[in-house]
Amino acid sequence: MPTIPVILDVDTGVDDALAILFAVKHPDIDVLAITCVAGNASLEQVVDNTLKILDVADAPAIPVAAGALRPLIEPARSASHVHGADGLGGIQLPATARVAETVSAVELMRRTIMDAERPVTLVALAPQTNLALLLRTHPEVAEKLERIVFMGGSASVGNATAVAEFNVWHDPEAAAIVLGSGVPTFMYGLDVFNQVAVEQDAAAAIAAGDDAVGRIVGALLGNRVALSEDATAQYTGLIGDAGAVCALVEPETLRIENRPVRIELGGYGRGQTIVDMRVYGGEDLLHGLAEEWTNIDIALDVDAPRYAELFLETLGLK
Amino acid sequence: MPTIPVILDVDTGVDDALAILFAVKHPDIDVLAITCVAGNASLEQVVDNTLKILDVADAPAIPVAAGALRPLIEPARSASHVHGADGLGGIQLPATARVAETVSAVELMRRTIMDAERPVTLVALAPQTNLALLLRTHPEVAEKLERIVFMGGSASVGNATAVAEFNVWHDPEAAAIVLGSGVPTFMYGLDVFNQVAVEQDAAAAIAAGDDAVGRIVGALLGNRVALSEDATAQYTGLIGDAGAVCALVEPETLRIENRPVRIELGGYGRGQTIVDMRVYGGEDLLHGLAEEWTNIDIALDVDAPRYAELFLETLGLK
Amino acid sequence: MPTIPVILDVDTGVDDALAILFAVKHPDIDVLAITCVAGNASLEQVVDNTLKILDVADAPAIPVAAGALRPLIEPARSASHVHGADGLGGIQLPATARVAETVSAVELMRRTIMDAERPVTLVALAPQTNLALLLRTHPEVAEKLERIVFMGGSASVGNATAVAEFNVWHDPEAAAIVLGSGVPTFMYGLDVFNQVAVEQDAAAAIAAGDDAVGRIVGALLGNRVALSEDATAQYTGLIGDAGAVCALVEPETLRIENRPVRIELGGYGRGQTIVDMRVYGGEDLLHGLAEEWTNIDIALDVDAPRYAELFLETLGLK
Amino acid sequence: MPTIPVILDVDTGVDDALAILFAVKHPDIDVLAITCVAGNASLEQVVDNTLKILDVADAPAIPVAAGALRPLIEPARSASHVHGADGLGGIQLPATARVAETVSAVELMRRTIMDAERPVTLVALAPQTNLALLLRTHPEVAEKLERIVFMGGSASVGNATAVAEFNVWHDPEAAAIVLGSGVPTFMYGLDVFNQVAVEQDAAAAIAAGDDAVGRIVGALLGNRVALSEDATAQYTGLIGDAGAVCALVEPETLRIENRPVRIELGGYGRGQTIVDMRVYGGEDLLHGLAEEWTNIDIALDVDAPRYAELFLETLGLK
Ligand SMILES: [Ca+2]
Ligand SMILES: [Ca+2]
Ligand SMILES: [Ca+2]
Ligand SMILES: [Ca+2]
Repeated sequence: MPTIPVILDVDTGVDDALAILFAVKHPDIDVLAITCVAGNASLEQVVDNTLKILDVADAPAIPVAAGALRPLIEPARSASHVHGADGLGGIQLPATARVAETVSAVELMRRTIMDAERPVTLVALAPQTNLALLLRTHPEVAEKLERIVFMGGSASVGNATAVAEFNVWHDPEAAAIVLGSGVPTFMYGLDVFNQVAVEQDAAAAIAAGDDAVGRIVGALLGNRVALSEDATAQYTGLIGDAGAVCALVEPETLRIENRPVRIELGGYGRGQTIVDMRVYGGEDLLHGLAEEWTNIDIALDVDAPRYAELFLETLGLK
Repeated sequence: MPTIPVILDVDTGVDDALAILFAVKHPDIDVLAITCVAGNASLEQVVDNTLKILDVADAPAIPVAAGALRPLIEPARSASHVHGADGLGGIQLPATARVAETVSAVELMRRTIMDAERPVTLVALAPQTNLALLLRTHPEVAEKLERIVFMGGSASVGNATAVAEFNVWHDPEAAAIVLGSGVPTFMYGLDVFNQVAVEQDAAAAIAAGDDAVGRIVGALLGNRVALSEDATAQYTGLIGDAGAVCALVEPETLRIENRPVRIELGGYGRGQTIVDMRVYGGEDLLHGLAEEWTNIDIALDVDAPRYAELFLETLGLK
Repeated sequence: MPTIPVILDVDTGVDDALAILFAVKHPDIDVLAITCVAGNASLEQVVDNTLKILDVADAPAIPVAAGALRPLIEPARSASHVHGADGLGGIQLPATARVAETVSAVELMRRTIMDAERPVTLVALAPQTNLALLLRTHPEVAEKLERIVFMGGSASVGNATAVAEFNVWHDPEAAAIVLGSGVPTFMYGLDVFNQVAVEQDAAAAIAAGDDAVGRIVGALLGNRVALSEDATAQYTGLIGDAGAVCALVEPETLRIENRPVRIELGGYGRGQTIVDMRVYGGEDLLHGLAEEWTNIDIALDVDAPRYAELFLETLGLK
Repeated sequence: MPTIPVILDVDTGVDDALAILFAVKHPDIDVLAITCVAGNASLEQVVDNTLKILDVADAPAIPVAAGALRPLIEPARSASHVHGADGLGGIQLPATARVAETVSAVELMRRTIMDAERPVTLVALAPQTNLALLLRTHPEVAEKLERIVFMGGSASVGNATAVAEFNVWHDPEAAAIVLGSGVPTFMYGLDVFNQVAVEQDAAAAIAAGDDAVGRIVGALLGNRVALSEDATAQYTGLIGDAGAVCALVEPETLRIENRPVRIELGGYGRGQTIVDMRVYGGEDLLHGLAEEWTNIDIALDVDAPRYAELFLETLGLK
């Protein structure tokens, strides 16, 4: 099987760090470029974290570029109270000699896609501002893409709000642009994201082990989200965005349905990925009210232990 | 146990017919009045169906009044393609000598509530237009109510649209008014509504039996919703709105959670009952964006066979 | 000319006080009833102010009823910082022996309209909550109405917000219900409301004069709206809602156009009366996007000195 | 006075053609680049029209680049029924040897702004999609801009809808991004746009004259907008977008006010430039509801004959 050429769009972030490590280490994935966007952390911090994680992964020279400082329409919002000022929950990584490209994320994406020998898979692990800017500024890239795989959305409960997942909520207009682009799209949302975890004992053992990568991975897995100044969430051990990258190489363990989706841009539900899970249509169809939906593939269930195992195996931690 | 004094607000309709029969027949429920609203059928048809069903139930003289012809803001929409022109799927009921009150539904509700010896439970089995008009015109009734029990909404998938249940979708502003009224509220939504059914063989046997009520009940259970001019849905055998009345007398077989709820009035999700099922709050709390939610009790699961049994037992059909 | 039978719906308030005085005193107007709603002041205060103003006018026994405590959907909002805690800018009126009816505003309206010998003109000088409740609870009144005349809206600049006038902004859903009722409707909005004033010297002379009614009228005309705790607006001398009542008896001095209107319910412009003043339609027509507008008569200009004169003459102050 | 370095962003289009001719011919304006966007015509047609108009103007080599094919969120909509399939009302222009740049509009803008010796004025005469993409992809350009001058919006009546002007209505999110960019912004909207016209006789004489440019200008001035398949609007003779370019060199004949503005993104008024023209704030301020407005300079009135004269003089037609 030939490798899968990908561009990762990230807001590194604990979740993205795990995903980058996995993508770089997996033999079937060829990371052509990484683009950065503000989200879990400020853009500057995201770029810095991304470069340092590439060192941790002992990655070859992968071009990294800085992208959007803020969402299209939503006000810029700091997430530092959740993920720490550095977005990595305070995990200190050594300084790096790697530097970001001087071109913008959009230009690095465009160039990489247009120059690639095979259609590229865009893997979005963050608010989709960069992707939206790319697709509107350079619509010619659409037909050179294999597909877009994004971590985001939910067909059930949200996290940023009752119904909205963080990445989509952070820039709903960007997600609407991506969903309407006509590029085949795969959604790895909270329905599966919240399932794939490494058990606390295992993560602790990895964190305390001799392997340099393992110590970082263990610390990242052990990171607990801040709920407020005084409270942190319980241990989850989620492999996070890495699960969306697992889906590139082992889609067969997912339950995937092709469903109509629409991004909610108005109302209290702003940022919701409305997924139509009905067996029959309803009054919306009878009264001609249900237009402009996009059908995409959505991961609804996962063999969670297998993904956790795949993750650890790929990083040589099992 | 003393009886539970209730007012039923209905858009009879197959679902409501089953609920009225059950309520009238159950010894622990005292139906003080029935108010009608346009929804599944036109107001005129709803009143007619309601009076005739009271005959089927051999009910005592229960006052029935006509209410709102249309939703507060939504355009009036016919549902006759779904439930047939008569809202009862074409089941012919004999003419009745009963007549509706000359006062409006709102006035009948007001009078009944204010005159009742004990606090009344308002059971809304239809779009909540009448309740909203009552609560805004006569807010003094609120403190004389025991609680509001409504069939409607969903904490998961919708039916009228991907996320909206019919009764709430039909008049979202009315639902918002009811939810914000301060009256303790219990939601019996699609999460449970879609579970409680009589099996097809059993329903057919009841329909073919000797019991007069049974023949009607069997026909109602066998009714299949029209999806379009040419297609009908599969047999479901749902007892429908009757389940919400079962919840009055056997709440202990339900899994009930007290959750924050808000009615979506804007966007594509208009008519959604947004239920916050999260364990932790998210960015909405951190950024102070999540105000004005109302906590209500929501039925999330049900011992479905028990409710089907309770329904049939109460009607003497088991 | 026979008298014009009217019901006044008010949130008395300085503006409404002037309008009630004018309506009661004008020989061509027959005030059948007055209904009260929360707006410029709390409902309790509005009722009290209304009864007392009827004493000032030496009015016959006109039935007064209390209506809605709050808007349909909008949160209840106090306007006491604008109009003073009593809504009359602190003007003390003597206690009254008049009492309000025990029936609701909606019932008083219904009864008055249905019992009237000739079609009634509903004059709405306040947020239109009562009218909306009436039209949805008792739609049969619509065809017994001559027309609805409302003070509210604007075809140009707003006052509550940049584009929304207070009465419509306070309850936009109510205004949408009224506008969509099919009853012929006349809008007396800010375009004319802000023009009709009594000059400061004249008002001061009236306030200092011997006439008992004049002293009250002068004080009301001299009232200056509070902008904040520390600042009041400049003297305006507006006759306010009284202008809308002048329009009943002297419409010929108004420039009136029949225009499509829609109430903005969403977005930043919530509460705007969008009036289509274009000569030609635009992209909205070409793309079929402009449905569900209602054509109503709108006063766009007024012979302001004449209305000020009419007002003072009618009250015997000129 | 040194020349004013500008980039024109256009959707040529009759209006833009007049503006390009004026800008190129005026000695105080230095057109550094022209960027194209879909709007009045398809992107391909806009680029073609723009290159041909530069020939008409006998312009030096000005770089022209193609930009966005469609708005950010709004669906792509053809305006060919209004402006003819070619956007120039059927006026045939000779073929041109000029060709567009191979880089995107966003890149041409970025490069031109960053390389300019003096701060550049961005003159937007079309939907603001290109500007929005530039400002989000390359926010560093903001501080190198002198200001943004845009034709669009209205402080009074709209044209695309009752309240929305075409350029803003065509891409409201783009306008919101531009308005929120922090770059000093000047709005030349319908309030002045609809005033500046050449009289029909004068335009006819120019169209029939010997001057090659004059024949084109006369034909453009004589163009009448199609209202439907069968009807065209009356002659207006508007110089259109050229007025916004006049404002660069003769701002002193405008009445300009600095006012809070917000782009309506929701509701029926979507695309409206809500301008706060009030003397005092209202309930929005008292209740803390009026945040996130941007103050910009707005042209509210113009010495229309002077602008028409300036336009013709500059083109040597008077
Ligand atoms: Ca991420
Ligand atoms: Ca029902
Ligand atoms: Ca008033
Ligand atoms: Ca243009």
